[in-house]
Amino acid sequence: MSNSRHDQIESTLARRFGRETVNYFSGSPLNRLSFLRANNLFLQAALKHPNTSVLLLKDLAPLVQDASKLAYATYDQVRGFIGENPFEKNEEELIKNYNSSITLPLVLFLGINEHQLEGFEYDVYKGKPYFAVDVTPKGTVKKEASNVIEPMMAKGLSFIERHQNLKLSAPEAAIFAQARALIDWNSRNQFCAGCGQSTLSVNAGSKRVCPPTDYAHLSIDSSKTETFNTPHQRLSCVTRYGISNLSFPRTDPAIISAVISHKSDKILLGRQRSWPKNMYSTLAGFVEPGESIEEAVRREVWEESGVNLGRVVIHSTQPWPYPANLMIGTISQALPDGETIHLEFDPELEDAQWFALNEVREALNVEANLGEIPNGEEECKGKLRLPPKTAIANTLLRVVLDELLPEIHKL
Amino acid sequence: MSNSRHDQIESTLARRFGRETVNYFSGSPLNRLSFLRANNLFLQAALKHPNTSVLLLKDLAPLVQDASKLAYATYDQVRGFIGENPFEKNEEELIKNYNSSITLPLVLFLGINEHQLEGFEYDVYKGKPYFAVDVTPKGTVKKEASNVIEPMMAKGLSFIERHQNLKLSAPEAAIFAQARALIDWNSRNQFCAGCGQSTLSVNAGSKRVCPPTDYAHLSIDSSKTETFNTPHQRLSCVTRYGISNLSFPRTDPAIISAVISHKSDKILLGRQRSWPKNMYSTLAGFVEPGESIEEAVRREVWEESGVNLGRVVIHSTQPWPYPANLMIGTISQALPDGETIHLEFDPELEDAQWFALNEVREALNVEANLGEIPNGEEECKGKLRLPPKTAIANTLLRVVLDELLPEIHKL
Repeated sequence: MSNSRHDQIESTLARRFGRETVNYFSGSPLNRLSFLRANNLFLQAALKHPNTSVLLLKDLAPLVQDASKLAYATYDQVRGFIGENPFEKNEEELIKNYNSSITLPLVLFLGINEHQLEGFEYDVYKGKPYFAVDVTPKGTVKKEASNVIEPMMAKGLSFIERHQNLKLSAPEAAIFAQARALIDWNSRNQFCAGCGQSTLSVNAGSKRVCPPTDYAHLSIDSSKTETFNTPHQRLSCVTRYGISNLSFPRTDPAIISAVISHKSDKILLGRQRSWPKNMYSTLAGFVEPGESIEEAVRREVWEESGVNLGRVVIHSTQPWPYPANLMIGTISQALPDGETIHLEFDPELEDAQWFALNEVREALNVEANLGEIPNGEEECKGKLRLPPKTAIANTLLRVVLDELLPEIHKL
Repeated sequence: MSNSRHDQIESTLARRFGRETVNYFSGSPLNRLSFLRANNLFLQAALKHPNTSVLLLKDLAPLVQDASKLAYATYDQVRGFIGENPFEKNEEELIKNYNSSITLPLVLFLGINEHQLEGFEYDVYKGKPYFAVDVTPKGTVKKEASNVIEPMMAKGLSFIERHQNLKLSAPEAAIFAQARALIDWNSRNQFCAGCGQSTLSVNAGSKRVCPPTDYAHLSIDSSKTETFNTPHQRLSCVTRYGISNLSFPRTDPAIISAVISHKSDKILLGRQRSWPKNMYSTLAGFVEPGESIEEAVRREVWEESGVNLGRVVIHSTQPWPYPANLMIGTISQALPDGETIHLEFDPELEDAQWFALNEVREALNVEANLGEIPNGEEECKGKLRLPPKTAIANTLLRVVLDELLPEIHKL
């Protein structure tokens, strides 16, 4: 799969709609080979290959060389924690052998990088395998997890999270996003939302099932006697009959919109109370069930600012791994009589304002005005401060100012 | 909020990108007023207004007059089931009074229709309120639910689901989609995925919380004695500290793509084994965590058909309430050397083929060739059979054939 080639090729769609925008956290160099996650022979071979890279996360923070570079472990460095062969059993066998009193380390298969051909081959698939392991010390393998972490620390590596200003290259950010989102989902879903019983990770971290039996000697019904040879039956659960979305990772779609005024001469921005001084951004919010993206944009913008929108155009999207959002970037335009700002409907924003195009352009062009982390007010050169280049809000504002409005004004 | 006016207004975005496509199940006439779901005084007033419409669902099937028209109940017709005042308590009081042994009927606030001004006013909000109630007989209110259902049946109304070919008007389909998706989510999430304990619906059906205490006399720790005046403490749960997405409805984003060949002269379609004879459609699949829409399209199309894609353009979206999918409609183009079909990667499809534009156009124009439900093979006039007009697949194919390709070939 030629994931990284798509933006270099001429096509009628590219000529008509321009080149595709690849936002930060997307553009992964990995082919996920999602259909092989159920193939435990493939997973075994991929995990044990000497060139395989294993990303470690502790409390959702990745192991890094420094803020700009991920550090990878090898299978040999984690086998004492994950076991000689975590993919020995297939899904059916894992479910049959389920014992809720044993902590099974989470080993995710992320994919293979087909541009790094370093000897791994399986069937027609060739490339460097990538895995991720959650090494947060917990449960019955607390000590074994620490035994992986300590040698890494001794080498000067560290685990750092977002608030410490992770600055990964775009391809590494995409690998981290996938690992973080999936480990977070597995951590949050230790129990079945359908019946309340504990769940089990299968398919290399991309599915959780609610097993019908359990070898743990702690029975729900204490009147029954059991031996270790006979697992106890668990309560019936609806997720075992047919396909349930509760078994698969959750992704929360969210909209974000660069709103232009009816005359295309102003841009609507809002600010949250907790943000640094002078910081504004495009409006955003979660999509609700039974709602299209376009409707969600009109609802959120009206609720937060009182502005009534007409046409909504979807521009590009961005995975956002805090915890597993899908940011859907749009450009939209206010109705001629819909531009009055009202903050009293949903009082989520501290302020919302229409900004002149020049003011937004200037803020985007002054590097010191961009950033998630307050750099100290003296570094903010203008009145207005905007999100950093890694945020889709920044992309959308640049597209409006540099591509869309000049093109519209030409017409 | 002028949700229904957006497509009639001229704007520079509409001139540049064309009119917005409103797919079936979207285009709701309701203003959800999502920020008022926590206001129990507003909810009380809205529920009890004489012009309020209450949609009833039993086992997720809506009450209808016939397949093309929803039937609505009034507050008076359901008060024996939902109680005199289901919105008497606010979120804090509901949590404090939680008793897991009592079944609380699910009463959803859907929104108000601001184009139906029939006397209801609250603060600055005016319009006809819409609610939905799950009348599936269960738990401690089984009899009361039947008492609502029986008089409706006696009037000749019925509950019908998708497989019986529901044919609602577009605005009613959107109202049903919202109600069905939210009732389904509430039904599937009776337990907390974070800790396994039972959850409680708050905010008029749009949030579920894991209460810290429970008045039910069945204690988890049977060594403790309790009176009915003192609720027992439940196990600690991470969802009670900070905001957790487990508290909010789940929406699963899915991609669907009309794939055109590199020379724009063919369209890629696939078929699943279970479909009626000659039925083909655009390829589709779920978005994974840490993946953009554009990446998901390239991954799914390659996994299912072996075709390698370049540019992906997002066209329009559609809520799909089976159970709570968000269909993201895209148009994409194969790479010059990426058109060979391979079905052996993810063997999900029975077949995938490149179809000539004329063949697809002909199938779209022959009404008998469209439909989810097999009409008998003699009714299928051509070789190729396609999804009905209510499916976004149909829209995307029409856009490619009628708008995009003629425009591209003009260039």
